[in-house]
Amino acid sequence: MESKAITKIGVLTSGGDAPGMNAAIRAVVRCAFYYNIEVYGIYRGYEGMIQNDIRQLDSSDIAYVLERGGTFLKSARCAEFRTPEGRKKAYDNLQKHGINGLVVIGGDGSLTGAHLFYKEFGIPAIGLPGTIDNDLSGTDNTIGFDTACNTAIESIDKIRDTATSHDRLFFVEVMGRDSGFIAINAGIGSAAAATLIPEKKMPVEALIDRLNTRAKAKKQANVVIVAEGGKSGGAMEISKKVKKYLPNYDIKVTILGHLQRGGSPTSYDRVLASKLGVSAVEGLMQGKCDVMAGVINNKVVYTPIKRAIVDDKEVDEEDFRVAKILST
Amino acid sequence: MESKAITKIGVLTSGGDAPGMNAAIRAVVRCAFYYNIEVYGIYRGYEGMIQNDIRQLDSSDIAYVLERGGTFLKSARCAEFRTPEGRKKAYDNLQKHGINGLVVIGGDGSLTGAHLFYKEFGIPAIGLPGTIDNDLSGTDNTIGFDTACNTAIESIDKIRDTATSHDRLFFVEVMGRDSGFIAINAGIGSAAAATLIPEKKMPVEALIDRLNTRAKAKKQANVVIVAEGGKSGGAMEISKKVKKYLPNYDIKVTILGHLQRGGSPTSYDRVLASKLGVSAVEGLMQGKCDVMAGVINNKVVYTPIKRAIVDDKEVDEEDFRVAKILST
Amino acid sequence: MESKAITKIGVLTSGGDAPGMNAAIRAVVRCAFYYNIEVYGIYRGYEGMIQNDIRQLDSSDIAYVLERGGTFLKSARCAEFRTPEGRKKAYDNLQKHGINGLVVIGGDGSLTGAHLFYKEFGIPAIGLPGTIDNDLSGTDNTIGFDTACNTAIESIDKIRDTATSHDRLFFVEVMGRDSGFIAINAGIGSAAAATLIPEKKMPVEALIDRLNTRAKAKKQANVVIVAEGGKSGGAMEISKKVKKYLPNYDIKVTILGHLQRGGSPTSYDRVLASKLGVSAVEGLMQGKCDVMAGVINNKVVYTPIKRAIVDDKEVDEEDFRVAKILST
Amino acid sequence: MESKAITKIGVLTSGGDAPGMNAAIRAVVRCAFYYNIEVYGIYRGYEGMIQNDIRQLDSSDIAYVLERGGTFLKSARCAEFRTPEGRKKAYDNLQKHGINGLVVIGGDGSLTGAHLFYKEFGIPAIGLPGTIDNDLSGTDNTIGFDTACNTAIESIDKIRDTATSHDRLFFVEVMGRDSGFIAINAGIGSAAAATLIPEKKMPVEALIDRLNTRAKAKKQANVVIVAEGGKSGGAMEISKKVKKYLPNYDIKVTILGHLQRGGSPTSYDRVLASKLGVSAVEGLMQGKCDVMAGVINNKVVYTPIKRAIVDDKEVDEEDFRVAKILST
Repeated sequence: MESKAITKIGVLTSGGDAPGMNAAIRAVVRCAFYYNIEVYGIYRGYEGMIQNDIRQLDSSDIAYVLERGGTFLKSARCAEFRTPEGRKKAYDNLQKHGINGLVVIGGDGSLTGAHLFYKEFGIPAIGLPGTIDNDLSGTDNTIGFDTACNTAIESIDKIRDTATSHDRLFFVEVMGRDSGFIAINAGIGSAAAATLIPEKKMPVEALIDRLNTRAKAKKQANVVIVAEGGKSGGAMEISKKVKKYLPNYDIKVTILGHLQRGGSPTSYDRVLASKLGVSAVEGLMQGKCDVMAGVINNKVVYTPIKRAIVDDKEVDEEDFRVAKILST
Repeated sequence: MESKAITKIGVLTSGGDAPGMNAAIRAVVRCAFYYNIEVYGIYRGYEGMIQNDIRQLDSSDIAYVLERGGTFLKSARCAEFRTPEGRKKAYDNLQKHGINGLVVIGGDGSLTGAHLFYKEFGIPAIGLPGTIDNDLSGTDNTIGFDTACNTAIESIDKIRDTATSHDRLFFVEVMGRDSGFIAINAGIGSAAAATLIPEKKMPVEALIDRLNTRAKAKKQANVVIVAEGGKSGGAMEISKKVKKYLPNYDIKVTILGHLQRGGSPTSYDRVLASKLGVSAVEGLMQGKCDVMAGVINNKVVYTPIKRAIVDDKEVDEEDFRVAKILST
Repeated sequence: MESKAITKIGVLTSGGDAPGMNAAIRAVVRCAFYYNIEVYGIYRGYEGMIQNDIRQLDSSDIAYVLERGGTFLKSARCAEFRTPEGRKKAYDNLQKHGINGLVVIGGDGSLTGAHLFYKEFGIPAIGLPGTIDNDLSGTDNTIGFDTACNTAIESIDKIRDTATSHDRLFFVEVMGRDSGFIAINAGIGSAAAATLIPEKKMPVEALIDRLNTRAKAKKQANVVIVAEGGKSGGAMEISKKVKKYLPNYDIKVTILGHLQRGGSPTSYDRVLASKLGVSAVEGLMQGKCDVMAGVINNKVVYTPIKRAIVDDKEVDEEDFRVAKILST
Repeated sequence: MESKAITKIGVLTSGGDAPGMNAAIRAVVRCAFYYNIEVYGIYRGYEGMIQNDIRQLDSSDIAYVLERGGTFLKSARCAEFRTPEGRKKAYDNLQKHGINGLVVIGGDGSLTGAHLFYKEFGIPAIGLPGTIDNDLSGTDNTIGFDTACNTAIESIDKIRDTATSHDRLFFVEVMGRDSGFIAINAGIGSAAAATLIPEKKMPVEALIDRLNTRAKAKKQANVVIVAEGGKSGGAMEISKKVKKYLPNYDIKVTILGHLQRGGSPTSYDRVLASKLGVSAVEGLMQGKCDVMAGVINNKVVYTPIKRAIVDDKEVDEEDFRVAKILST
């Protein structure tokens, strides 16, 4: 496909929201304006593309959004876009506005959509990794992951205060879908007694051993981090199993939940999102498409979407080892 | 009972921990030292009093605790102290150390203990209101309440980010036992669509009406605050009832839980705890006992414990009215 | 003056901005809508009133402003409004829009303007205390004060980390114009070695004594809080004087500056601003004017503006005593 | 030099303190205990080594330090250690305690000390990069840098609130010694109008042009970030130059100062410090010495100290370009 000059870019956020999405949108808009390209906001992800909820953005739309959590373009999951009919409707709407380049910010489902759409209609699309789960290849970190880790440890710090005051055992469940990135970072970062992640099975007996060893070292206050998608079950389930072994221990469960998705993005996420927003626009201008822009080792890298969404990224074995050494 | 010179003060924290307890302990110790009085830390509340887990505190014990959540003296609930035998043991331990004045920091149960103990053994005791629930009379605010309110709104701000991005309805459950103080403040402070508190019954139909009115005004993103002890049930229960009326609405529940108990105390709680710690020591020196020190209208006031624990403090009708006006 | 039905309210912020101003504006708008009253935003304070920078506000203007620092109506100081000609112009502009009630959010200068304006033109005006300085009578706290105190102690906590690591003496200058409210709260709340406030002269020799006493108690790391308007000079000046007495001591100065004016308002400020916004509208409806709405002892109170701006509010002698006991 | 079994490790922090130093110390101690190695805390850096301010650390010393800013081992700059006599004294003290491995946490000066010391006395030493300035090679980021960036943007967010409310121009000076890493990240992360860094000279005229362009686009509120070591002078100096060109513009200066050094470390810094603490101990056990442990591309890498301290790390040209695009 020959690359034509990009004159009108459509930008959307899709899937679960992540802190830094606004910063990415702003960077797309700002960078496009820098190159005299128009930008159209597509509201509520692919849903808005199908329903023609598309408006031209100007400078005032992106004032003071950089530091805000969530996405002012809103997000949604859209079943209809998974049908060829839905995508046809969406394409027709883009045509109406003359949009000839697309920036899609979201997780693997969202990027898959962009990939399909490009294949079917040839609209150049660049994906940006926007998800707190960090489960995309082709980038060291996804937009929102660093903020989610910080939100998690700040919450766990508070829970540790009360765990310590009462010599309690707390199970804290963090987000991350099938991946343990938030959990392992929160585990190392908050001096957890143990961290249960999907990538590693830890039998309840091993956990009980760990807790008993710590008890001998007078560490009565314990926080155990549980990744939501863990093979051993969620925090609630595991706490029940542990309760059977340690019936007299004061055990509590906190499920951090959706507060991990919100909040003002960290410095890292703001800078990452800003760089990637610029890279998306410049990538489109250079004729790149069907790729995701990411940052690897501080350099922008474009990876074919198909490869980025094959999630072969796993928590580093080494990190798991460090977590274990530090919690024993 | 004639007042004798206080030479050795015992200090303890009891019941649920609250941010600012450390600041209160520090102020007790600092003020006692200022007047050349010794201070003994009684660990794990009445439990430690019974088990003689009592140690003299020096200046280094209270360095850098002012800003920390929780209580370094630890806290516990103690069944044995509710028996005359338990209290006798506790009294004997205080005698061993020569402790002739007591500062008890905690909620109503903890203060009740101090009251009984004083009546039975005549040890002068002053209580300080330490609980996030704000459910004690004799003080405008309890130590920890302001911090808990701030923790709640900061978490809810994050949840609103994601509620807004997805046009969702969130039910957020906050702490407060039988009282709606945290809830009403969080409700006003975070632009909640509605606030359900124990003091006021709100039928589900009224809530549905409110949500429908807001929907007409294009307010699709809604956060409803639910006090844990609410008559209408917890957040989980209410969300299920609402789901029946609004089956297509994307509804989520977050239970903030114990993170509301921790965290570095706010300016208000630090100053309140500091003032009250000084007032406890000076009160004991002046022969006061069986009273709780509180701050009413910026002045320290001593209230008989028996009156302070009769919780007739309720969320101001006016605050409820303001919350309603602002969320309609 | 007979009270006529209020149909159109103008709202403005004036003078130095304070966190919670947005929450107050939002409450004014929301409450007005509740009573079917129109609201006009007057931009940049009295400046915008004179230049007719006045626009009708709707619901979308106040979405997601509650939690934001600053004021979206912007603020300015305006010399022209101090002239009768300027005020005449301003009045004519209000007439054009049919505005027959005014809510002015700001400090003493801003309220003085409202008072004059009412006297000259009879436009009912209610003032709201919006200033971080807390230097208005007729209210326990002004909007923004609690947030500024928290911003100050959070910053000082960080400075204490480095002071402690290096056994340094830090002078930290906080805001507050002629009043020591922020300083005394920050001093108590951050374990300061001393607090220098305008209301109390502390000779350098006394400060040196205090530092020497602490040095004997092995307290080498010291933070001294200095109110900007202090009689003994700013932090820079005092540090130089102290340096002469303690030439080998590693002394640093930090002037917190304008960051104390910004930031998301605390729970307290959000609730205070919300209540007062409602009170302003309801006060106007009840025919009140030339008054400031404040909260005293948890109740809304209307005080004649002339009396509110006579700043006889001083740091409580008792707070000063507590600060001294705790830092010795 | 043949590698002998490490049985006693000495650990110290030196130079300017940085958030995460405590987390690094804790990881060193925890990891050493894991391998049954004793650890000695050397207080106040090389100063304490010379004055034999050395104490064995146990588990309780490192409880609840992970999340604290500063360094509980304290830090100092030490002139005497630059003399051979000083180093001899220091060596003798290590001998007394039988310390046969050293972990030095600090910046280039501190690591240089370790290098010299190793060369002269053959004590195996591993350095960890602990400085907010990020000016060491051999690691993507230094311990403390990420926290400092976040502290900076949080402060600048607050300053922007007031800049926006008043349409002011703020010059905010951030730390970083000769390097612009904090500045460039803060600049991108806080939507700065311009960022002045030591690595790039920006003439005042170019800055004025930028401000005028923005003024035409109605961007009246501007924040300009200035790195402390910038060639164009500090924030104060530059603001004066700009004032001459724009005499009617309301210009303010804030020097963030030492608050950037403190505060609870971010998730990133906690994890980085934890990993590096483990790597230091394991590196010593493997016979490594005279190296700095760092993390490059998520992997631990050991770099000869001599090479790590040759600061050839500069702000990425690409980051500077992104900053420019986004602020135009």
